[in-house]
Amino acid sequence: MTQITQVSLKPPYLVFIGDVSEPNYAKTAFGLIQWCSDLVAGQIRFIHNKLDLGVSDMTIQQAVDAGVKSIIIGVAPVGGSVCQKWIDVLVEAAEAGLDIVSGLHGKLESHPELVVAAGKSGSSLINVREPSNNLPIATAVKRKGKRLLMVGTDCAVGKKYTALSISRAMEEACLSATFRATGQTGIMIAGSGVPIDAVVADFIAGAAEVISPDNNDNHWDIIEGQGSLFNPSYSGVSMGLLHGSQPDAIVICHDPTRDFIGNCPSIPVPNIKECIALTLACGKIVNSEIKCIGVSVNTSSLDNHQREEYLRQLSEQTNLPCFDPLLEGCSSIVEQLRGN
Amino acid sequence: MTQITQVSLKPPYLVFIGDVSEPNYAKTAFGLIQWCSDLVAGQIRFIHNKLDLGVSDMTIQQAVDAGVKSIIIGVAPVGGSVCQKWIDVLVEAAEAGLDIVSGLHGKLESHPELVVAAGKSGSSLINVREPSNNLPIATAVKRKGKRLLMVGTDCAVGKKYTALSISRAMEEACLSATFRATGQTGIMIAGSGVPIDAVVADFIAGAAEVISPDNNDNHWDIIEGQGSLFNPSYSGVSMGLLHGSQPDAIVICHDPTRDFIGNCPSIPVPNIKECIALTLACGKIVNSEIKCIGVSVNTSSLDNHQREEYLRQLSEQTNLPCFDPLLEGCSSIVEQLRGN
Repeated sequence: MTQITQVSLKPPYLVFIGDVSEPNYAKTAFGLIQWCSDLVAGQIRFIHNKLDLGVSDMTIQQAVDAGVKSIIIGVAPVGGSVCQKWIDVLVEAAEAGLDIVSGLHGKLESHPELVVAAGKSGSSLINVREPSNNLPIATAVKRKGKRLLMVGTDCAVGKKYTALSISRAMEEACLSATFRATGQTGIMIAGSGVPIDAVVADFIAGAAEVISPDNNDNHWDIIEGQGSLFNPSYSGVSMGLLHGSQPDAIVICHDPTRDFIGNCPSIPVPNIKECIALTLACGKIVNSEIKCIGVSVNTSSLDNHQREEYLRQLSEQTNLPCFDPLLEGCSSIVEQLRGN
Repeated sequence: MTQITQVSLKPPYLVFIGDVSEPNYAKTAFGLIQWCSDLVAGQIRFIHNKLDLGVSDMTIQQAVDAGVKSIIIGVAPVGGSVCQKWIDVLVEAAEAGLDIVSGLHGKLESHPELVVAAGKSGSSLINVREPSNNLPIATAVKRKGKRLLMVGTDCAVGKKYTALSISRAMEEACLSATFRATGQTGIMIAGSGVPIDAVVADFIAGAAEVISPDNNDNHWDIIEGQGSLFNPSYSGVSMGLLHGSQPDAIVICHDPTRDFIGNCPSIPVPNIKECIALTLACGKIVNSEIKCIGVSVNTSSLDNHQREEYLRQLSEQTNLPCFDPLLEGCSSIVEQLRGN
């Protein structure tokens, strides 16, 4: 079931940058380098483009010779669609048998040349934002293995970053763990997943069950969160993900500089204890053992003193490890998961 | 915005029954007769079919002459699609300029004859299960007017029936109220709405905001609920609907004979106080004034004595009016809304 219903990518990857020279528009490319550089064989960029991921430049032919299976569009231009000037290179890649992978809003299929080229070689056009249409309805049957879900006090508070950091720290500690992706960048990094906010409402929790299937008793799925129960625009996504994930543990992710929900300026960001309490109350419906094991704080806007003071006070209030994964790593979380 | 994004039907209606003689497969037809008979001009059924809605039999031509604007398929055969033997009549209706309205899973457009006929006359093929694709993301901006949302302890516990009963009772009491539909049968009865469980996850709350727009200060929207926060398969839908609805009041709907969630036999149905507490905790995020004003119980499986005893005890426990809308009406709810 998992293979049919999840987006699934074939490594190794050639990362397409093209003419995009502004790093802010190449976040996906940098994410791939940061989190799965072992799957990235090289980059392809237009002549005179100085943006550099720090990996080998390759032509399509060199990529094919190196065994590359997919070209991933690592940039997101204003407008969110594939640019016409990229098409020649992408067609060459498709003709050479590479899968074309895009996380952009505009569909790859809207370019007939790409459809023809992929049709000839038998390669796939993969729109990572588009979920499979054969997702199941959730059953809430308890699955084997353990699950840790990232939960936000709002959107865009570091849930993906925290999940990836914990997954890497688990790996480094030789513990059995898998990062499970629920959004397009995460899916590219993980090589599989479901873009859960694009799923039809009835299938949200079913998608979450697919993302994190039965596993060994001591294995941890580290699940990328989406939205927040406290963000009224996306709380349905978060609730379905919580119930489909059946988490044994949650980590709250928080941005201390935000007072109001990003896209809903009339709604205050909850305090951490409130967020923990509501999430546990909702999560208990599917897993009576659920507990909160830490708070991940994006402290990038605080100076050293503020940061230490903020994390110390928060730790006192919550009686939980409070940490910035970027600055002090995730050992406090790993040690708790090790015992389980 | 409302007109663009909601399904919207044109009355009066001709209700299509065709060859379906089993009342259980004609629930939509009976629902239309029960809840909006003033919009129903007649029925059309195949010869020898004894199933009778108690309204005039009409040919397509008679319906056109009577000013009918839409033919609604009021039956759901096994398989959930439009039957081939219905096509001749539906084509005749489309050619005569009637909109064809279907709540079935199979799309009307999968019958090319219907597409051609509707194209010629300019009539519409309306699949009530299919939401508009231009729904907005929710903003959580507080809207004028008041809202009452039905909330279930599970799916299929009488939320639609309760909402319709309360709406009718409000109307009879000369109070300003509108039934707002979130599912296909409700949409047919109301003539508009959004099938909220078919919306893409990111737009659930946005759809709920569209369903229940700004209104007069003393007007109540009586909003049909969907799913339950306690039903893990559909809790995302319920959460998004709760946050998009911004309800001032909720009525809990409950089936006392059910111990476990319908489609999730490992998950117990919550007790009423638990359901109220979690719903208010979640609802407060968008409306700090939210309160529970009653419990609607489907007591059809209890005898008179059991029923009275059950409602009395529940009322004592919750300190709320507890009632079966089918048996004693909704005056206890109407009186509370009158004061607001």
